[in-house]
Amino acid sequence: MDSGNRKQTILLTGFEPFGGEKVNPSMQIVKRLSKRHFQNIHIETLILPVSYEKSTKVLEEYYKDHHVDFVLHLGQAGGTSGIRIERVAINLLDSRHPDNDGVIKRETPILENGPDGYMTRINVREIANFLNSKKIPAFVSYTAGQYICNEVYYYSLHHSKTFGIPKHVLFIHLPFLPEQVASKEGKTENIPSMSLELQTKAIRLLLENIERFI
Amino acid sequence: MDSGNRKQTILLTGFEPFGGEKVNPSMQIVKRLSKRHFQNIHIETLILPVSYEKSTKVLEEYYKDHHVDFVLHLGQAGGTSGIRIERVAINLLDSRHPDNDGVIKRETPILENGPDGYMTRINVREIANFLNSKKIPAFVSYTAGQYICNEVYYYSLHHSKTFGIPKHVLFIHLPFLPEQVASKEGKTENIPSMSLELQTKAIRLLLENIERFI
Amino acid sequence: MDSGNRKQTILLTGFEPFGGEKVNPSMQIVKRLSKRHFQNIHIETLILPVSYEKSTKVLEEYYKDHHVDFVLHLGQAGGTSGIRIERVAINLLDSRHPDNDGVIKRETPILENGPDGYMTRINVREIANFLNSKKIPAFVSYTAGQYICNEVYYYSLHHSKTFGIPKHVLFIHLPFLPEQVASKEGKTENIPSMSLELQTKAIRLLLENIERFI
Amino acid sequence: MDSGNRKQTILLTGFEPFGGEKVNPSMQIVKRLSKRHFQNIHIETLILPVSYEKSTKVLEEYYKDHHVDFVLHLGQAGGTSGIRIERVAINLLDSRHPDNDGVIKRETPILENGPDGYMTRINVREIANFLNSKKIPAFVSYTAGQYICNEVYYYSLHHSKTFGIPKHVLFIHLPFLPEQVASKEGKTENIPSMSLELQTKAIRLLLENIERFI
Repeated sequence: MDSGNRKQTILLTGFEPFGGEKVNPSMQIVKRLSKRHFQNIHIETLILPVSYEKSTKVLEEYYKDHHVDFVLHLGQAGGTSGIRIERVAINLLDSRHPDNDGVIKRETPILENGPDGYMTRINVREIANFLNSKKIPAFVSYTAGQYICNEVYYYSLHHSKTFGIPKHVLFIHLPFLPEQVASKEGKTENIPSMSLELQTKAIRLLLENIERFI
Repeated sequence: MDSGNRKQTILLTGFEPFGGEKVNPSMQIVKRLSKRHFQNIHIETLILPVSYEKSTKVLEEYYKDHHVDFVLHLGQAGGTSGIRIERVAINLLDSRHPDNDGVIKRETPILENGPDGYMTRINVREIANFLNSKKIPAFVSYTAGQYICNEVYYYSLHHSKTFGIPKHVLFIHLPFLPEQVASKEGKTENIPSMSLELQTKAIRLLLENIERFI
Repeated sequence: MDSGNRKQTILLTGFEPFGGEKVNPSMQIVKRLSKRHFQNIHIETLILPVSYEKSTKVLEEYYKDHHVDFVLHLGQAGGTSGIRIERVAINLLDSRHPDNDGVIKRETPILENGPDGYMTRINVREIANFLNSKKIPAFVSYTAGQYICNEVYYYSLHHSKTFGIPKHVLFIHLPFLPEQVASKEGKTENIPSMSLELQTKAIRLLLENIERFI
Repeated sequence: MDSGNRKQTILLTGFEPFGGEKVNPSMQIVKRLSKRHFQNIHIETLILPVSYEKSTKVLEEYYKDHHVDFVLHLGQAGGTSGIRIERVAINLLDSRHPDNDGVIKRETPILENGPDGYMTRINVREIANFLNSKKIPAFVSYTAGQYICNEVYYYSLHHSKTFGIPKHVLFIHLPFLPEQVASKEGKTENIPSMSLELQTKAIRLLLENIERFI
């Protein structure tokens, strides 16, 4: 009954604002794309809390009840200037910065006795080349940090490897929006940004062409 | 016969592409804004050659024959991430990079016996604050380099000081466009950019409010 | 017959110069420390070729014939400003730059079907704190790159995990020496460096106190 | 009675610590070199307060009573990685950071109606090349900031131009010492530093060869 023409179901996640920011580009992109109709894929969306505890709880619940072919996690990485395609998640939480629950984690594994690291099976190099060919700054990164972004990436890669759900996982870090940088100027100068339009276009193009990178 | 309501005449200049680039955001902004109607100002435009010799020749000819209240020079500064409002021009040319005529200048004054440096009288701090309030990354810079950009800035500031023409002078450096950075990725990573839309908006807003900063 | 007082045997490795450099701080430190007498440890040294193929061959041979409690790999990381203590190795080789044999590897696993990544069991955070307390700039890094340094780190961590030889593994990336940066000035400016004396002191202090971090 | 062999009298100045730092490399170098005997030059030294008001008062008094052929001002520039040879001083004070008296100055000229900027007549390019040839990272800078360092530089260049005292003026910015960076690690990573030995050697070599650059 199934067919090769079945639409891929994609879960697109973003994060709430954190670290004193009022917005988070990942949340705004998810909201914009959630309203959009795609021909070849079926999209569902989630906004994740910036919480060591709740972020993975929300995903755990979701993966229990839903079929997902591909999860694309989006997060903000202040200081980056392009679409930063993350290749690696590691089994470690370690940041001086509290999460939105006020929790600080130092030198803590995400999963006791879990593998040290996971690399996505998605073709990250091809995605970077593809976005560059579409005139969008993009590059591959080999560290997703040691904060909630890395936690969520590691969690989904582990879930995928262990249970086959979701089938494919990718994390993309996004630059600040211009308005975020503008509100910091005078304090810290020359921080890169990217317009919401271009960031959204990058993610939309990736979703529309997702079959090419799996 | 004159009146306080006379429109300001503004000369807006950009540069040709250089340094192996196919485009120059300053040229594109000038072309876009040259077609635009402004209520309060009269705009004229020039595209300057990236040439130590010709750039100032073109300006010299222009200043001979035209009334200019305000000259706004625009140029590209690869590596910058915001609208970079230049405050200072110095009496020095010095770069390893040839201009578009193939000429290299090292340790050469722009004007023999000219003053060492000029600061614009335009309120650069207020412009940065204004653009930030409009959600556009912008900041004040204290070095316009030692290449054609600095030459043109020094030349116009000196002409203004010496002959009162133009009355006011400002130089603004602009980030790469996203497409310029995208074509470099894989070679050099994490170079900042800003969309042509936002760059053009910044210059348009500045022109529309130019009276506030003089 | 064994005793708690047995001296630890430490293999300290450095690399040959590469990438057009005439020297490599890692090689110079290894040479300096190879002549030094340590009270509590026994040191052996190796200079590894900057070769995808030969670097791990040399280690393979060595691990066959020698008892090693701890291997400390040193390598140069141009652009870093402190003692960069690497925590993670990944199963990937990917660089535009050829090795000293002229070989380029793109998107190639180090070990077919090997784990995606390894984290060292050495207490890297404590090492960074310890060196800082000794007035030496040092920090933990989460990516050792995708070149020979990462290859060697992954290889030794995998060998350790698989065969228990060596028992412990760590990779440390080192800044350029001042003389390396001085020879580049005029071309690229403001590249960080660290004196050979301070780099050597950092590694010597680490070796003398190695028991604290295992 | 005078002769071409008369020793040059050089005033070497450094600054007190500021900005929460416990030390200032410029003060330490001045102290080290004040005890040193030079064959070809006579050295006097001053430690300047990091005070908008007092720094130039101290210099004013000094210039009244002393013959100075050459003043070499040294200051700390956190974030720089090499010996930064300043070429330009501008007639502006503007910083968010208070001086050691708690005074903040924004958008304030140093000298009402003074020239906008001064360039030193010392051959800064040759000094950079000379230090590089001695294996010391060094480069020319075109902005000395808008804080006390720039104030002192502008003041001495203006005094020299106006009264011929001192005859020659140069300002050099110095990197953090390793110990300064080590005390920040964990908070901010990858800040460059340079050993006191190498910084001192750079200044000593410059003083010993000062005739070549005048």
